Amino acid sequence: MGIKTIGIVTPGGDAPGMNAAIRATVRKALSEGLRVFGIRNGFAGLIYGEIEELDWKSVSGIMDLGGTILHTERFENFSDPENLATASEELKRNRIDGLIVIGGDGSLKGGYALHHFAKIGVVGIPASIDNDIYGTDETIGFDTACNTAVDAIKNIKDTATSYERIFVVEVMGKKRGFIALHVGLTVGAEAIIIPEEKFDSERFAQELIKGRKKGMRRAIIVYAEGAGNREEFVRFLRERTGFIVRESILGYIQRGGSPTYRSRLLGSLFGEKSIDVLLKYPEEANMVGIKDNSLTITSLKVVINNEKPINLDLLRVHRDISVFKV
Amino acid sequence: MGIKTIGIVTPGGDAPGMNAAIRATVRKALSEGLRVFGIRNGFAGLIYGEIEELDWKSVSGIMDLGGTILHTERFENFSDPENLATASEELKRNRIDGLIVIGGDGSLKGGYALHHFAKIGVVGIPASIDNDIYGTDETIGFDTACNTAVDAIKNIKDTATSYERIFVVEVMGKKRGFIALHVGLTVGAEAIIIPEEKFDSERFAQELIKGRKKGMRRAIIVYAEGAGNREEFVRFLRERTGFIVRESILGYIQRGGSPTYRSRLLGSLFGEKSIDVLLKYPEEANMVGIKDNSLTITSLKVVINNEKPINLDLLRVHRDISVFKV
Amino acid sequence: MGIKTIGIVTPGGDAPGMNAAIRATVRKALSEGLRVFGIRNGFAGLIYGEIEELDWKSVSGIMDLGGTILHTERFENFSDPENLATASEELKRNRIDGLIVIGGDGSLKGGYALHHFAKIGVVGIPASIDNDIYGTDETIGFDTACNTAVDAIKNIKDTATSYERIFVVEVMGKKRGFIALHVGLTVGAEAIIIPEEKFDSERFAQELIKGRKKGMRRAIIVYAEGAGNREEFVRFLRERTGFIVRESILGYIQRGGSPTYRSRLLGSLFGEKSIDVLLKYPEEANMVGIKDNSLTITSLKVVINNEKPINLDLLRVHRDISVFKV
Amino acid sequence: MGIKTIGIVTPGGDAPGMNAAIRATVRKALSEGLRVFGIRNGFAGLIYGEIEELDWKSVSGIMDLGGTILHTERFENFSDPENLATASEELKRNRIDGLIVIGGDGSLKGGYALHHFAKIGVVGIPASIDNDIYGTDETIGFDTACNTAVDAIKNIKDTATSYERIFVVEVMGKKRGFIALHVGLTVGAEAIIIPEEKFDSERFAQELIKGRKKGMRRAIIVYAEGAGNREEFVRFLRERTGFIVRESILGYIQRGGSPTYRSRLLGSLFGEKSIDVLLKYPEEANMVGIKDNSLTITSLKVVINNEKPINLDLLRVHRDISVFKV
Repeated sequence: MGIKTIGIVTPGGDAPGMNAAIRATVRKALSEGLRVFGIRNGFAGLIYGEIEELDWKSVSGIMDLGGTILHTERFENFSDPENLATASEELKRNRIDGLIVIGGDGSLKGGYALHHFAKIGVVGIPASIDNDIYGTDETIGFDTACNTAVDAIKNIKDTATSYERIFVVEVMGKKRGFIALHVGLTVGAEAIIIPEEKFDSERFAQELIKGRKKGMRRAIIVYAEGAGNREEFVRFLRERTGFIVRESILGYIQRGGSPTYRSRLLGSLFGEKSIDVLLKYPEEANMVGIKDNSLTITSLKVVINNEKPINLDLLRVHRDISVFKV
Repeated sequence: MGIKTIGIVTPGGDAPGMNAAIRATVRKALSEGLRVFGIRNGFAGLIYGEIEELDWKSVSGIMDLGGTILHTERFENFSDPENLATASEELKRNRIDGLIVIGGDGSLKGGYALHHFAKIGVVGIPASIDNDIYGTDETIGFDTACNTAVDAIKNIKDTATSYERIFVVEVMGKKRGFIALHVGLTVGAEAIIIPEEKFDSERFAQELIKGRKKGMRRAIIVYAEGAGNREEFVRFLRERTGFIVRESILGYIQRGGSPTYRSRLLGSLFGEKSIDVLLKYPEEANMVGIKDNSLTITSLKVVINNEKPINLDLLRVHRDISVFKV
Repeated sequence: MGIKTIGIVTPGGDAPGMNAAIRATVRKALSEGLRVFGIRNGFAGLIYGEIEELDWKSVSGIMDLGGTILHTERFENFSDPENLATASEELKRNRIDGLIVIGGDGSLKGGYALHHFAKIGVVGIPASIDNDIYGTDETIGFDTACNTAVDAIKNIKDTATSYERIFVVEVMGKKRGFIALHVGLTVGAEAIIIPEEKFDSERFAQELIKGRKKGMRRAIIVYAEGAGNREEFVRFLRERTGFIVRESILGYIQRGGSPTYRSRLLGSLFGEKSIDVLLKYPEEANMVGIKDNSLTITSLKVVINNEKPINLDLLRVHRDISVFKV
Repeated sequence: MGIKTIGIVTPGGDAPGMNAAIRATVRKALSEGLRVFGIRNGFAGLIYGEIEELDWKSVSGIMDLGGTILHTERFENFSDPENLATASEELKRNRIDGLIVIGGDGSLKGGYALHHFAKIGVVGIPASIDNDIYGTDETIGFDTACNTAVDAIKNIKDTATSYERIFVVEVMGKKRGFIALHVGLTVGAEAIIIPEEKFDSERFAQELIKGRKKGMRRAIIVYAEGAGNREEFVRFLRERTGFIVRESILGYIQRGGSPTYRSRLLGSLFGEKSIDVLLKYPEEANMVGIKDNSLTITSLKVVINNEKPINLDLLRVHRDISVFKV
């Protein structure tokens, strides 16, 4: 019989461009004659019944906004059977027979659990500033976060240059080094430290000392949040080199902000595509994505059971054009 | 024997990210043991001998800058034999046996002509805010230009919303509609007008009148520079609808600015790759590019003899999620 | 008996920071125990009865937004007796006995006419990107517009520098040269052309020719919209110097955008103060402003009958530190 | 006989707009027929002889840049007699008989000490993002830092709103609360905590709990670096309210960046004026500043011996228009 009513939910960390995805999803669904419900506050909204119908105007003018207009909420243990049961009933009560889940790893896992439990069609849309989702070359929000970090480090470089100092800048990425790698390469960092690759701190300290003698005036080290103990690294660097080393943690500014052109584009394309996929495979759980510049469909089960590889070739490029060959 | 000395030139319109390409090209070449010369003011510098050697530090700290540190200059008739002859001699005088040409269509044509005449190895790097170069999914600078236009139109939307007005915003693209299409989709424009697709002005005017009755409060029309007589279109719209229609020409602000993360990334990757290609095919004329997310090599002859298709599927997506189904 | 109910209206051109003023006005009034009505679409809303009560939450989260949440509408002939009569009745119907008018010259004139006709207390809040209002050193929005123009010209400088071109950049200011003067000085323009001061085009052309000989590589000329025939000036410059001269009209991007810190500050301070003034002088028509860094009160009658002087001393500073002594 | 040769030095923390001040100082001095020397790396450059002559072109195109092109360096104990003696000789060796010192409190103290010791004319230019210098309403760089912080907090608000979280955002200001106060007011913070005013944490916690019950969805607390133990405050808040409280330290991004229009304006005006003051009072030590919108001259001795008052009236305005009346 096919899908008649869908729900949209953004259960995890917010990422710029989510609103573009919500907008495209809602409007495409309405264009296809579906009813659309927005679920507020992530999966919690499915437990507490925070659901409201959305129409064409509900999503007017939201593309410029960071965050998610549906709001979000971390919800531990959503995949426990009693939670899934409550959520399933809430879906039934609203006659929702298809679900669009916009978010990162945890969101997609929750969506898959719900698909399995409630036998509902689910399409995931990968949105996360961390870019760490299998099945898509890029996630919604990654481009904005990289630009925010590049701009912030541009500011820090002014002080680093004026003072001729060494700065260790921590960027987001609890588990993976995507932001650090891409940002480090594009700000011209002297070093990039990520969880995926061993870093030779001793050798780097020696390079710094040599570099300073040759007239190197400043150094920027981009450090992924999840790359190990940053404070220890900074202490080591100070002791080994005797130089003044400053720290800056970019933190939450990387999560918000009006989305860039590209985050809007991915949001719009993924959102529109998600409805096509839901209508075509109304009983499956899939994720839309982009691979090799084409929109793709990957089984959610595959997505959540695989780890996305990082392109370490960028590290090689970085080494080739960077002062230090660490 | 292989290439020992290269020249780098940026002959055409500037595009943000060119400096990232220059930086990567220079440093990669130096890493490979080559000597590197920067040619100032485009091909004119080859005629007037404005050439200087570049080292590691010549390109320090330039990645943040818009424009091109090598400067540029339109040069009519560069492909005339006497000009090519002068240029060839200048190359010989400096023992330059490989040339990196960073720029758009005209630059690449000039590079090809020089290759043909001087029997010199040439690698083109596609850099143009217009994105209209065959052989690459994206050119250096396009992402920055799109972001600048999106931000500018965000400003205009404030006034359009406050006044409930219709705005026709002209974006760059003398021949092609890439910027207009991508920007129009991602600002949520009510209409996108590009050279590649017929636009039904009469029907759009009717939709506007209907929309206003239904409470539509503002409309943004993104108009590609090369899509025909804009002033005539505006006049038609005013007469047909009776509404107040304002115009804004974004103009040169789209050409400059500190490059975005992505324009820097493409610049760095293309720059690094160009040296590999030159060393591997020292007697050919090729262009580096990105297709399906991988770096590619395309014969310059093919590049300059083909027209890049535009992804009209984006227009369909736009229609699906836009108020007006024009 | 004092004022119990106020109306707020934004009748003229939008300016960034207006929403900060609306927010402060509404909340201060509520803090003082007043009822508050927002009048939509400027004075037109008083004619057509587009009025709604505002509470604390109506103005939550609006400070970041450009434009005006009350929307605006040019309304010709508002000061005609029949219009004033209709507006007066609408005010009475809503028991509005005090009016806050946020806007520029035309808005303040309308406010004064209404005060006169309806014997209602009025306080004006000067908001205009043009800064051309007597009785205040600075208007809400001016700082944002100057920053937008400075940033836009920074982009244009990239191209001007790369190409070594002359650019004539038109900034807003139909009657006055405030934006041009302040922006010209702070972008390091080679020339500033404003309505308030004669400009010696002949001498400037000579200086350009001399400058080019001495190695001057680019020139930026900031031209106020109201400074006379720009196209004629450009034609003259081209003919006299033989140089390539490009034009850019910044246009509406200067009107919108998220307000700067300073536009928010002025908006907040003026808004809060306006309620104090209304309560203290409930039968008068005044304007709040800032002079010599202190908040001030000026009779609206004085405001609308005087022209604000421009600080030509800035032109002298410009000449002192500029290449050309024109 | 008067002054013939001047030196310019930026000894302390960098602040955006310093380069505008350097540019104006150099060019005005040259216009007056003086020779100009730039002293690199702050007072250290006077000890180690890092001095070079500057001409008109040395300061071309620097207005857009953050930081200081003269670089800077903290130098402990510059005011020790042996350091002052070395510096004095270096000044004499270069025949520098007037010194422009651009910077904050420490820079001005060093400048005064040198004036006293070397009997050299000194003019200070107040430049510090902290705005904590007596004798001027505003310092160069303060406006840029406030805008950077406002923009960063705009990003954080996206996440705070989406998650309905409480965020404590630390802004710069080791001793004083200028940035926190101005930024807190203009981002619409729920609380502002500064060193200059006691904050009732207990009462605020109660207000937060009440606010949450009434539907308050997020709260931003702007916390000055020097306002006491931030971590302790956050811990208290978490324990007292049971809410999730997140932290963000804006850090060094506030120090850099291309200067805003206003920081450029102050830099240009102060720079130009400093030469006038030096020529008029060649044997004194003064500081230029802005008070009540006019350029002023204050004795350096008075400047360094007085503390600038903060405008606590802004706290009152904040309370009036803020949800919480703490």
